[in-house]
Amino acid sequence: MINGIKVIGFDADDTLWVNEAYFVETERKWRRLLAPYTGEEAASAELYRTEMQNMPLYGYGVKAYVLSLVETAVRITEGNVAAEVIGQILSLGKEQLSRPVELLEGVEETLGALAGRYRLILVTKGDLLDQEQKLHRSGLERFFHHVEIMSDKTEKAYAGLLHRIGIRPEAFLMIGNSIRSDILPPLSLGSYAIHVPSLAVWEHEKADAPLAHPHSYTVGSLKEIIPLLRVES
Amino acid sequence: MINGIKVIGFDADDTLWVNEAYFVETERKWRRLLAPYTGEEAASAELYRTEMQNMPLYGYGVKAYVLSLVETAVRITEGNVAAEVIGQILSLGKEQLSRPVELLEGVEETLGALAGRYRLILVTKGDLLDQEQKLHRSGLERFFHHVEIMSDKTEKAYAGLLHRIGIRPEAFLMIGNSIRSDILPPLSLGSYAIHVPSLAVWEHEKADAPLAHPHSYTVGSLKEIIPLLRVES
Repeated sequence: MINGIKVIGFDADDTLWVNEAYFVETERKWRRLLAPYTGEEAASAELYRTEMQNMPLYGYGVKAYVLSLVETAVRITEGNVAAEVIGQILSLGKEQLSRPVELLEGVEETLGALAGRYRLILVTKGDLLDQEQKLHRSGLERFFHHVEIMSDKTEKAYAGLLHRIGIRPEAFLMIGNSIRSDILPPLSLGSYAIHVPSLAVWEHEKADAPLAHPHSYTVGSLKEIIPLLRVES
Repeated sequence: MINGIKVIGFDADDTLWVNEAYFVETERKWRRLLAPYTGEEAASAELYRTEMQNMPLYGYGVKAYVLSLVETAVRITEGNVAAEVIGQILSLGKEQLSRPVELLEGVEETLGALAGRYRLILVTKGDLLDQEQKLHRSGLERFFHHVEIMSDKTEKAYAGLLHRIGIRPEAFLMIGNSIRSDILPPLSLGSYAIHVPSLAVWEHEKADAPLAHPHSYTVGSLKEIIPLLRVES
């Protein structure tokens, strides 16, 4: 049981709604566009390399991803990709940014049960505009006090968040699907964390499971956090 | 004279450091890359049209800009632009993201004079990562309590900011170069605003000068805000 929590941070992508699957789908379509020029496996490996190289400059999010898709297409075709294909890659990105939001199971009822008792905030990385638009389309806006965007979900970034909203680490609980981004940094600060594993995890977000930690819990789906907080749903 | 201020928000781009001139320079290089395909004036007009179309989906910032540069290049060449040129356009964007920060006149001394007496925050739009990196490279990080990123600087966004940091509108002063983004929204909320005009203003940011407003001031350079606040520099 977790006591003394005042503010709960929710990761958004793949915690509240489907996200990684859309990147996977965009990448599949991108590989198909490049099939006349290169093998599919080689294309994906080169894309991942490009993304990692660009990360310090571009950060996370769909726009960064599309820029890396274009860059990789130019490079692996040795400058032979048709401009028309570049235009199609840009369209894939716009499609991804415009997709309806698909909520994960139990999200609405869980947020509904918690919203009156805790201050809920959305804690996310990527593009602020994209995340705000997804929150708006999701219909979940009413449950959240505000959106916190971080360029990267590091311990320092979480410390800044706690400082800004003016609460002690023990009064903060973070909930998310990424051990690296949502679980380990808050635990290091003395906060609580609940891991809700998702099916699809991007290579970059993979991390070893945390050691058994007195402030850390793992649940199979979002609904299971309600009994942990002793809230009636 | 302005009294009762507790928090001062500073716009970043073209208020603390050079920004718009870099976009203009990137655009000039982009037009030169496309000179074999199209006229320079036509290219710029089409770029602005593309940016405005993409704004609701991409928002502000360099990554959004580069995506629009690539899209416009494909379209105005009717799909004939060489992939190599696309690669060069991506490089222009990376150069712009990596440029050293050039501070505007009087910035450091003004922030130094204000930092001990007020809580200073950076209030900006665009890419959070890019803005954080510029703040870091600028050496001005020590003066600011934190960075507030907005997807757009609307009245609603400023109201959210005041709510989050928990101050009344009359205790907030916003300083910036854009009448549309930095001056009019805070004035509507009952806050104070100081306009510091910059030489280069992006077409999209242009707005009529505000009516004479009891909470509004205009200065020729950042240093002139010190006497307005009755602070000794």
